[in-house]
Amino acid sequence: MRLHLINPNTSTGMTTRIGESASRIAAPGTRIVATQPESGPVSIEGHFDEAISAVGVTEEIAKGERDGSDAYIIACFGDPGLMAARELTRAPVLGIAEAGFHVASLISTRFSIVTTLSRTGIIAEHLLQAYGFAHHCRRIRAAEIPVLDLEDDGDAALTRVIETCRRARDEDGIGAIVLGCGGMADLRATIEEAVGIPIVEGVTAAVKLAEALVGLGLGTSKHGDLAFPRPKSFTGHFAHLSR
Amino acid sequence: MRLHLINPNTSTGMTTRIGESASRIAAPGTRIVATQPESGPVSIEGHFDEAISAVGVTEEIAKGERDGSDAYIIACFGDPGLMAARELTRAPVLGIAEAGFHVASLISTRFSIVTTLSRTGIIAEHLLQAYGFAHHCRRIRAAEIPVLDLEDDGDAALTRVIETCRRARDEDGIGAIVLGCGGMADLRATIEEAVGIPIVEGVTAAVKLAEALVGLGLGTSKHGDLAFPRPKSFTGHFAHLSR
Amino acid sequence: MRLHLINPNTSTGMTTRIGESASRIAAPGTRIVATQPESGPVSIEGHFDEAISAVGVTEEIAKGERDGSDAYIIACFGDPGLMAARELTRAPVLGIAEAGFHVASLISTRFSIVTTLSRTGIIAEHLLQAYGFAHHCRRIRAAEIPVLDLEDDGDAALTRVIETCRRARDEDGIGAIVLGCGGMADLRATIEEAVGIPIVEGVTAAVKLAEALVGLGLGTSKHGDLAFPRPKSFTGHFAHLSR
Amino acid sequence: MRLHLINPNTSTGMTTRIGESASRIAAPGTRIVATQPESGPVSIEGHFDEAISAVGVTEEIAKGERDGSDAYIIACFGDPGLMAARELTRAPVLGIAEAGFHVASLISTRFSIVTTLSRTGIIAEHLLQAYGFAHHCRRIRAAEIPVLDLEDDGDAALTRVIETCRRARDEDGIGAIVLGCGGMADLRATIEEAVGIPIVEGVTAAVKLAEALVGLGLGTSKHGDLAFPRPKSFTGHFAHLSR
Amino acid sequence: MRLHLINPNTSTGMTTRIGESASRIAAPGTRIVATQPESGPVSIEGHFDEAISAVGVTEEIAKGERDGSDAYIIACFGDPGLMAARELTRAPVLGIAEAGFHVASLISTRFSIVTTLSRTGIIAEHLLQAYGFAHHCRRIRAAEIPVLDLEDDGDAALTRVIETCRRARDEDGIGAIVLGCGGMADLRATIEEAVGIPIVEGVTAAVKLAEALVGLGLGTSKHGDLAFPRPKSFTGHFAHLSR
Amino acid sequence: MRLHLINPNTSTGMTTRIGESASRIAAPGTRIVATQPESGPVSIEGHFDEAISAVGVTEEIAKGERDGSDAYIIACFGDPGLMAARELTRAPVLGIAEAGFHVASLISTRFSIVTTLSRTGIIAEHLLQAYGFAHHCRRIRAAEIPVLDLEDDGDAALTRVIETCRRARDEDGIGAIVLGCGGMADLRATIEEAVGIPIVEGVTAAVKLAEALVGLGLGTSKHGDLAFPRPKSFTGHFAHLSR
Repeated sequence: MRLHLINPNTSTGMTTRIGESASRIAAPGTRIVATQPESGPVSIEGHFDEAISAVGVTEEIAKGERDGSDAYIIACFGDPGLMAARELTRAPVLGIAEAGFHVASLISTRFSIVTTLSRTGIIAEHLLQAYGFAHHCRRIRAAEIPVLDLEDDGDAALTRVIETCRRARDEDGIGAIVLGCGGMADLRATIEEAVGIPIVEGVTAAVKLAEALVGLGLGTSKHGDLAFPRPKSFTGHFAHLSR
Repeated sequence: MRLHLINPNTSTGMTTRIGESASRIAAPGTRIVATQPESGPVSIEGHFDEAISAVGVTEEIAKGERDGSDAYIIACFGDPGLMAARELTRAPVLGIAEAGFHVASLISTRFSIVTTLSRTGIIAEHLLQAYGFAHHCRRIRAAEIPVLDLEDDGDAALTRVIETCRRARDEDGIGAIVLGCGGMADLRATIEEAVGIPIVEGVTAAVKLAEALVGLGLGTSKHGDLAFPRPKSFTGHFAHLSR
Repeated sequence: MRLHLINPNTSTGMTTRIGESASRIAAPGTRIVATQPESGPVSIEGHFDEAISAVGVTEEIAKGERDGSDAYIIACFGDPGLMAARELTRAPVLGIAEAGFHVASLISTRFSIVTTLSRTGIIAEHLLQAYGFAHHCRRIRAAEIPVLDLEDDGDAALTRVIETCRRARDEDGIGAIVLGCGGMADLRATIEEAVGIPIVEGVTAAVKLAEALVGLGLGTSKHGDLAFPRPKSFTGHFAHLSR
Repeated sequence: MRLHLINPNTSTGMTTRIGESASRIAAPGTRIVATQPESGPVSIEGHFDEAISAVGVTEEIAKGERDGSDAYIIACFGDPGLMAARELTRAPVLGIAEAGFHVASLISTRFSIVTTLSRTGIIAEHLLQAYGFAHHCRRIRAAEIPVLDLEDDGDAALTRVIETCRRARDEDGIGAIVLGCGGMADLRATIEEAVGIPIVEGVTAAVKLAEALVGLGLGTSKHGDLAFPRPKSFTGHFAHLSR
Repeated sequence: MRLHLINPNTSTGMTTRIGESASRIAAPGTRIVATQPESGPVSIEGHFDEAISAVGVTEEIAKGERDGSDAYIIACFGDPGLMAARELTRAPVLGIAEAGFHVASLISTRFSIVTTLSRTGIIAEHLLQAYGFAHHCRRIRAAEIPVLDLEDDGDAALTRVIETCRRARDEDGIGAIVLGCGGMADLRATIEEAVGIPIVEGVTAAVKLAEALVGLGLGTSKHGDLAFPRPKSFTGHFAHLSR
Repeated sequence: MRLHLINPNTSTGMTTRIGESASRIAAPGTRIVATQPESGPVSIEGHFDEAISAVGVTEEIAKGERDGSDAYIIACFGDPGLMAARELTRAPVLGIAEAGFHVASLISTRFSIVTTLSRTGIIAEHLLQAYGFAHHCRRIRAAEIPVLDLEDDGDAALTRVIETCRRARDEDGIGAIVLGCGGMADLRATIEEAVGIPIVEGVTAAVKLAEALVGLGLGTSKHGDLAFPRPKSFTGHFAHLSR
């Protein structure tokens, strides 16, 4: 299967790293195609960044449809454009926050989230409520690291993430932690070893869930809410989206 | 005050009509500036249309900031880009679904929504949950009219909306109805007269709520979740958004 | 418009102060008529005080109806008698807790409440749940000041309110604070300046929301739950209420 | 024990009937004292009636305290003045809606309510949410009988209640029905026989719950929210309430 | 009435102690029959212990049915086998967690739970949600005492429970505490005296609620969800359960 | 990997059929070992059947631990014994209701459940609430077929299931249907073809989710709530469980 992994930000380094993490965890028959939008923010740290990035996500889905992708992953913890993306394809589409929450709730009764910046906590909070996991998440903790510091100053960032995870483990009454940033995809094992409880990371979780859905022969329902968009005209820069 | 009314779709006819409705209801000191994005869908009838329209909404906010707008309204019932828009300004920003829900809950204990197409119901449902009005809305009913039919075939559309409102009035155990489309802004009084119970319409509701917030000297909080976006680079078509 | 502001307690000093705050924020065409019941508690600091005060509130509504009021505000943070009041009139009726919650949720994603006494917290908690804002309020904090100390020992009281607001700002992960007492109506600007984040105060918020509803031509729905009370006999002291 | 049963409306016939129902179900050592306020509505069919009746309820509690009551019941399905009443005494105080919901949830997984008038449904709905039983109640059905018709035209009213209960039994997926009016206290057995599933009636339920609490040596907590009212002055008709 | 009190664990000492507590609180006409399963865990401190104990609970119900029990209590704070037990009888069946929550919510607006081990907190949390009391419980606190230490090292255990209750009283904003273990049945009065706020204990609470239901002539509904089990074959050790 | 599929009822025919369905969907490296308890009910159609079956489920887990199972599935739609099972192993354990809900929520915004008997609906309802999917499930529909009729009278049963699914598709406003019985595992494709919208079946869903978790190197958390059971004695028939 062709698993199209979309990094919604435009940092190629992060795309590469996420793609490698995904490839390592993928099943033998899964080919990971990691891409990023041509246009958009270099990192996503709030609602505005997210809104802009959603356009790029949908463009990548459109490309993926032309190239025959079997499933899609949106590799940013706010799941930007997830519902829009689902309208565009019969294939399954997974957000990494969504994937992380689902997996964590299958191996623990309660979990915490450790994310980068506290200002993005509200996005996770909204998603927990919309997806149904509000009662399963005990606390959203921020390590207070800008996303790109995970790239640029990895060791210091890693130390802070581990410290935050340990506090969550000791104080939150939880069984697992969800890492709240796509940029932490390759750190899961290291953090888990340092913290000693299951650490769930969304990119890897989404890869395996995507394989599961494809294996089941199930994709996004085209009956009702997530049917293909109604044909219509778009104007200006978006004229090419007219159907 | 300068009240910037953003029609998130690119139908100029609708922008004009919405602007006129807003102007009629506005206080003497309120100047309505109705605009629409240059680029985007001609109507918004699903998640994809909404995701694309959010870009245009943020661009209109940016223009509004340059022009000194005192408040903003996003005049599409899905409130596309609302959180992103709020990050961009100290002024208040209101969505028309949000405005409609707030007003309806102040004059009735329970309300129903009458919207255009059933496929957009899920968007209203998600907003009701996020805003806190899930228990106040008894039912979301669709008149099954495409948005632009409100423009093109107004009489037939109006008849169906009124019929649907009457069923809501008689069957739902409600005190008020929220009209679920920006394109119905100028029909509120007609529908209310035909149905005989309070009809809340989001554009007009948002105008008065925006005036209320400005009158209070209150705008979008810049402390915490809705602070201005962190400065960063954007690439490609969105390079102009770099800060 | 005639905006009837009902102070549910019988402290004339507070009525005057609240009325002045309301008048300052009111639009040019709005005439504030601030009254208080003839009979009732001098302050409202619990369920019993509230239950008694509700009678006076309804009597003031009845007077207002005779005098042609266009809207009503119940200026106590527990919104005593709000539903009863709504049954008595076609005009809009707003509680100040309700108004504060609505406004705060329009300018922030999450807010805290700073109230007078911790024992009244449960009243706010019940209102948050009934109105739909339970998830939007992070925490209810009490400055532990009896209501009338706001009158008698204003400076000390103000200091404690400001300190409590600052703790809320720093610890609660919020964007705004709702002041939880009608007696704080004239302190909003001072507190906001001292705390540096948006401070929402219920009396002023209710004035502008009442103007908004009247501007929309919308009042309390008389269809269903809030229809006028069924005619019936009352006995004893309340015989004059027979209809 | 002295169990003070307060009929919040001023219909002496109903007080007598409710008192008899309570006496029939009471334990040998329980003395039922059924009273009604001197002042108030002859029936309670909405928020306004309820607000006025709450004053009388608190007056009856005050009398009961002087007379040494061991527990109180508020025998109107909206539980008017319940929280206020609890502030006034160390004894347990039960509302009959509350009692009915508790008992029904102990013998079934889901129940429906059959009440008198649909306009009072919202009151039950608010109580279900506040007490925690919103998910346990499948549906609130109204037989559309004014409260006093239960007195005046008992047979016709009974027939309609039974018909409504049968529909609930057959359509709602429930195990029990809660009768939603104090005036149905003496009809429980008849209705249960006619409908064939457990019928819970609030007055009788409250009698046994009150006996249970007294038997446990437990009464209204005076720690925190329900502590005795703070001493203060009352004015006018309510001057006698000054403490 | 014959009130069958089932201690779901197989510690005879605890059965005796619980039975004595129950007898002390029971009404004169109530005969407490305290039993325990022949087979099962000596204490219940997690989901596995609970699952096994549920079999013994149902066997005790079956015996009780043969012996003519009028009501049943399941005296373990996780209410193991409660729904299964209810299917087996027309008599009322009460869990002690359930009983404790109901009683606490009738005498306070908010309560905390003080239980033995923090690992059992999740069981209480699930029950609070299922029964509807999630909003009424502020906090679940563990004294970190294994269940049988209540038997073996009573004084030290009591001291820790009292300390934990005092912290709950001072920090949680509550009016009452629910003791979260059947083994604390005889400690209620001592703890209440030491802590100074109402302490609710499940075994005693369940005795009085069971008497209340029997007094009302109400038992487990056999209409719908809790009807007797469908007849069928069981195999192996459970062959005797075939119907 | 060794994937241990536990049919909680003791019908060998169903075990075989479920095992075959699981094997067909499993990845090449997954070996399905389908077993059933030696002791227990031949079908599970209520809480009592479920409680008894949970013992057998835990015994099968214990065997699986000795045999080196990498993951477990509990193949009954009530997920009997799921939490107990999780305490016994570091491997992931999935219930088929849980698996069905998770998968359905990844491919649709709202789903309905089509189950066998309406009396088991309450079990699904409780699970939806506990797992967080209460808002995602529009309706639970029963085809009113006893579980074993799926074995004995397959064609008639299939027809009724398909009819019920079609009604769900047309009336419920959903995107997918979850089949609510392990016995329908081999009918998924047939039903999906007949109904024309995605049909999610729990056994197959659980197989792929189990593979996903094993692929992620994640299993049941042993930190906190789901740690191994505390060592203790068991008596009687369960003496062999002493640790």
